[in-house]
Amino acid sequence: MPIQAINARNQFKGKIIEIVTGPVVSEVLVGTPFGTVTSVITTRSINELELRIGSDVVALVKSTEVSIAKL
Amino acid sequence: MPIQAINARNQFKGKIIEIVTGPVVSEVLVGTPFGTVTSVITTRSINELELRIGSDVVALVKSTEVSIAKL
Amino acid sequence: MPIQAINARNQFKGKIIEIVTGPVVSEVLVGTPFGTVTSVITTRSINELELRIGSDVVALVKSTEVSIAKL
Amino acid sequence: MPIQAINARNQFKGKIIEIVTGPVVSEVLVGTPFGTVTSVITTRSINELELRIGSDVVALVKSTEVSIAKL
Amino acid sequence: MPIQAINARNQFKGKIIEIVTGPVVSEVLVGTPFGTVTSVITTRSINELELRIGSDVVALVKSTEVSIAKL
Amino acid sequence: MPIQAINARNQFKGKIIEIVTGPVVSEVLVGTPFGTVTSVITTRSINELELRIGSDVVALVKSTEVSIAKL
Repeated sequence: MPIQAINARNQFKGKIIEIVTGPVVSEVLVGTPFGTVTSVITTRSINELELRIGSDVVALVKSTEVSIAKL
Repeated sequence: MPIQAINARNQFKGKIIEIVTGPVVSEVLVGTPFGTVTSVITTRSINELELRIGSDVVALVKSTEVSIAKL
Repeated sequence: MPIQAINARNQFKGKIIEIVTGPVVSEVLVGTPFGTVTSVITTRSINELELRIGSDVVALVKSTEVSIAKL
Repeated sequence: MPIQAINARNQFKGKIIEIVTGPVVSEVLVGTPFGTVTSVITTRSINELELRIGSDVVALVKSTEVSIAKL
Repeated sequence: MPIQAINARNQFKGKIIEIVTGPVVSEVLVGTPFGTVTSVITTRSINELELRIGSDVVALVKSTEVSIAKL
Repeated sequence: MPIQAINARNQFKGKIIEIVTGPVVSEVLVGTPFGTVTSVITTRSINELELRIGSDVVALVKSTEVSIAKL
């Protein structure tokens, strides 16, 4: 289902640079201008979306999931 | 309590550029060299951490909270 | 940015039936075949996505966010 | 501890139709009259709740975890 | 719908000691023998569950939502 | 990067009492005055933070991640 736009305010566009595959979840490293963004998603999604090293993706984060630390 | 390091793999360092204050939660916009990161945290935390426009902060995201979309 | 597909395994397609607007976050009720799905997103997203009663949307949930209770 | 009611606004009642077990987390597919809901929980919880194919469960989602995409 | 048990591994039993009500979400402070646990839920849930100062509740946290910081 | 303070309102200080290691994520059990707090984080973080049985840590939970159940 193609999506026109999503509410996730934080969108980090990039290319997949590494995938660590587990039996249930996998770790996806996305190279972006912000640096490497790491995501853990189901291995089932990796397969269904046919994610590979080099795939063009966007990492999405809902703003309620972002914490703030003071330096 | 000062913290030496945290597991959140996604850390975006920047300065607060805008705060929208609500009665319970507030929206914090963090300007980073690569774009704005948006966070929603409690207004109570804004006050206790004394967050202001210009505060040096790091926006933190746990990797299990990051979704991946295919372009 | 149009998206081809997203990893969120739980996708509930429907129409917005109610929006409760707050200063920072808003509550969006989506009528779906599963029943009403409730989402809390930033009011900024409501405005930017131009969400209205009747808008065609899909409510998305990452599977790591789903709890299981035994009846 | 039996619970009378929970705040999670999104509750999907169904039966477990598949469990993929990993060393730390497992994927639970819940069949509902309107489609499958997928959850990732700890394998420890699977064992303690004695979840099996056919168990009657409810999948719960907090509304702050629900994203909205425009079609 | 009464629930027999839930997968949330982190359960903090206590009494509500404060509620800050907003138009969409509210902040609930739960006093436990070991300290206060803070939750933000929809104001709609506060009303439907008839939560009040003194209500006996349990605060629940999915283990995938818990971060670890090193001291 | 040392952190002065973080917005996470729920902070449970303790010592690691058990680690279950998986290929992608690991389960960390932290003994605290509140009881055992369970966290699932990436195995990569376990290694980088050099978390071991006995490490002094604080388990952090954002208040938007805390559900409330009525007893």
